[in-house]
Amino acid sequence: MMQTPHQSLWVKQDDPRTIEIIDQRSLPHEVVIEELNTLEDVATALREMHVRGAPLIGVAAAYGMYLAACHVTKDQSFQATMEKAALTLKATRPTAVNLQRAVDRQRVQIQETHSRERGRQRLFEEAQRIREEDIEICRKIGEHGVSLIHAIARKKKKTVNVLTHCNAGWLACIDWGTATSSIYQAFEQGVDLHVWVNETRPRVQGASLTAWELSQRRIPHTVIVDNASGHLMRQGRVDLIMVGTDRTTATGDVANKIGTYLIALSAQDNNVPFYVALPSTSIDWTLRNGFDIPIEERAMDEVTQAEGFLDGERKCVQLTPEGTPAANYAFDVTPHRLISGFITERGIAPGCEEGLLQLFPERKAAPHDG
Amino acid sequence: MMQTPHQSLWVKQDDPRTIEIIDQRSLPHEVVIEELNTLEDVATALREMHVRGAPLIGVAAAYGMYLAACHVTKDQSFQATMEKAALTLKATRPTAVNLQRAVDRQRVQIQETHSRERGRQRLFEEAQRIREEDIEICRKIGEHGVSLIHAIARKKKKTVNVLTHCNAGWLACIDWGTATSSIYQAFEQGVDLHVWVNETRPRVQGASLTAWELSQRRIPHTVIVDNASGHLMRQGRVDLIMVGTDRTTATGDVANKIGTYLIALSAQDNNVPFYVALPSTSIDWTLRNGFDIPIEERAMDEVTQAEGFLDGERKCVQLTPEGTPAANYAFDVTPHRLISGFITERGIAPGCEEGLLQLFPERKAAPHDG
Repeated sequence: MMQTPHQSLWVKQDDPRTIEIIDQRSLPHEVVIEELNTLEDVATALREMHVRGAPLIGVAAAYGMYLAACHVTKDQSFQATMEKAALTLKATRPTAVNLQRAVDRQRVQIQETHSRERGRQRLFEEAQRIREEDIEICRKIGEHGVSLIHAIARKKKKTVNVLTHCNAGWLACIDWGTATSSIYQAFEQGVDLHVWVNETRPRVQGASLTAWELSQRRIPHTVIVDNASGHLMRQGRVDLIMVGTDRTTATGDVANKIGTYLIALSAQDNNVPFYVALPSTSIDWTLRNGFDIPIEERAMDEVTQAEGFLDGERKCVQLTPEGTPAANYAFDVTPHRLISGFITERGIAPGCEEGLLQLFPERKAAPHDG
Repeated sequence: MMQTPHQSLWVKQDDPRTIEIIDQRSLPHEVVIEELNTLEDVATALREMHVRGAPLIGVAAAYGMYLAACHVTKDQSFQATMEKAALTLKATRPTAVNLQRAVDRQRVQIQETHSRERGRQRLFEEAQRIREEDIEICRKIGEHGVSLIHAIARKKKKTVNVLTHCNAGWLACIDWGTATSSIYQAFEQGVDLHVWVNETRPRVQGASLTAWELSQRRIPHTVIVDNASGHLMRQGRVDLIMVGTDRTTATGDVANKIGTYLIALSAQDNNVPFYVALPSTSIDWTLRNGFDIPIEERAMDEVTQAEGFLDGERKCVQLTPEGTPAANYAFDVTPHRLISGFITERGIAPGCEEGLLQLFPERKAAPHDG
């Protein structure tokens, strides 16, 4: 039996023209490995969320550009075909900035390349680099964030209760995760902790993916409906909140999975620290207002139905009367005034523009260069 | 074909020893009428939520006492058997005060009754009275609350967007509903309105029951996941929030379906009026602090699974890995500081103790008599 992989995407051994991913739609029921060989394979995997999570979709898109380059035929213009590939990939998921940025990094690689073979090679190397960078960023986020958990453990001398939303774990990245990296590192260092996992309707990535990740590492956790986070905070049963982000403005407004804003409001009302694990790759230095972040709208049936497993098969049950209209906004924006702090690969900073600039001072000189 | 009933519970025609209910578990897929003949039938219907909603479970419990009296045998003590019946009914659902109160009203009816036949008759009449009172209370709540909707319609001159949570409609009562009564009356009076329906995990009474009720009356509505209410408010797309309540303290703290507190926080943050439709039967004058309201905890599988319809049958799909621990708090408490006002059968008042006492001045003299 195959061992469960502990990364979400990798280049197939002995076959550098094949990318392998965990098809996350089969989790938590089954670990299915999918091979991606073409641009269309990658675009489908992004659009239909075989892979999801801002950092991971950036890495996947980078390999998508590489796979597109592998299949440019002799009668096609390399530049024009690659430009079309870039647009195809960018259109799959509009909210996360990582995807846009990874594709743009790949564009730069081939800007002045006239040799197709050379272009392919450069795209491959850059995708590998983006992948390695992501692992390192996540590891460092955890290294910094773990201090927050230790501080509570020292003061409280009882189990530390961390609440998280959606999946900002290694399944959303390559390894470690963003919000979960501190949790994994604290647990490895022996901290007595317990995680409240918001199920995260409509796609329940918390109940399925985060719960699966935590169970794999035997970290104590309890799944709750999203509605319950406020009640738990009122009862004093949440010590710390850690969430991820899909895109953060230069002013510190955070787009993350729908529902994050409500958690942040409740955190403020109950004096619970609310931290965003923020890889610098997800900062959009060109935006100054959260209202300018495009919010993806997804299909109605994710809301009118619930998807899960029944007798080992993925099935949907209908929740509403047939034909009921629904709206499905995938993300919301939490204004920086509700954010205690950002945990980045360079350290922890207050949840505001000044905080971000403390950690990324090079942005003071050129704040609008994207 | 049977016509769809427009009430949730009634005495069977020509058979006063049978109570009929809509078995709400089959909605929205099918309208199933269930006959209740014994105390145990009623207790099961309460516990397993064939009927639900604070006002309706009060009425059902009142008839439960009557049905219990119908089956006391000659060798049983009438008083002792009825006392046991009262405890059985009270234990089915701990949070709503209506149930406790309806059972206590029935106890008073038989306190000094030595004739069983006379006792039965009195229990029947009192149950009928509680039922009629509920209809009248709901009708009046709507008569008062509709002024809030008219005021917004006059000012906005466009569609009025009302958001509601869970089901505080006629399915939760006998007729009209509490939170929905104003909506129904405004719609009948020609107001251009649209309802945002929170699905209300885990049991999705919003997506199933409220959406069904609104579709029956052709009122425009859109179902959203509970996570989305904050986003909609930030976008200025909610004009008014109306919710029900299971128990309200004398100081105005409101226990209602889990998630209500988060909506109230978001309403405050976005200056959206947040009203609680408050039949006086749900006020617990003996409590002065929301933290003292007992909060029902329900089975874990309501959280780890989602229940809905598949090929015409009620099915559950598994959301989490098998064996994942979950917590299932059915209600939360919204502190009165977040409540714009109460809509009661006597009128509208500010969301605080003084507001309640304006409408119920008789409570000033004896605030603690329960």
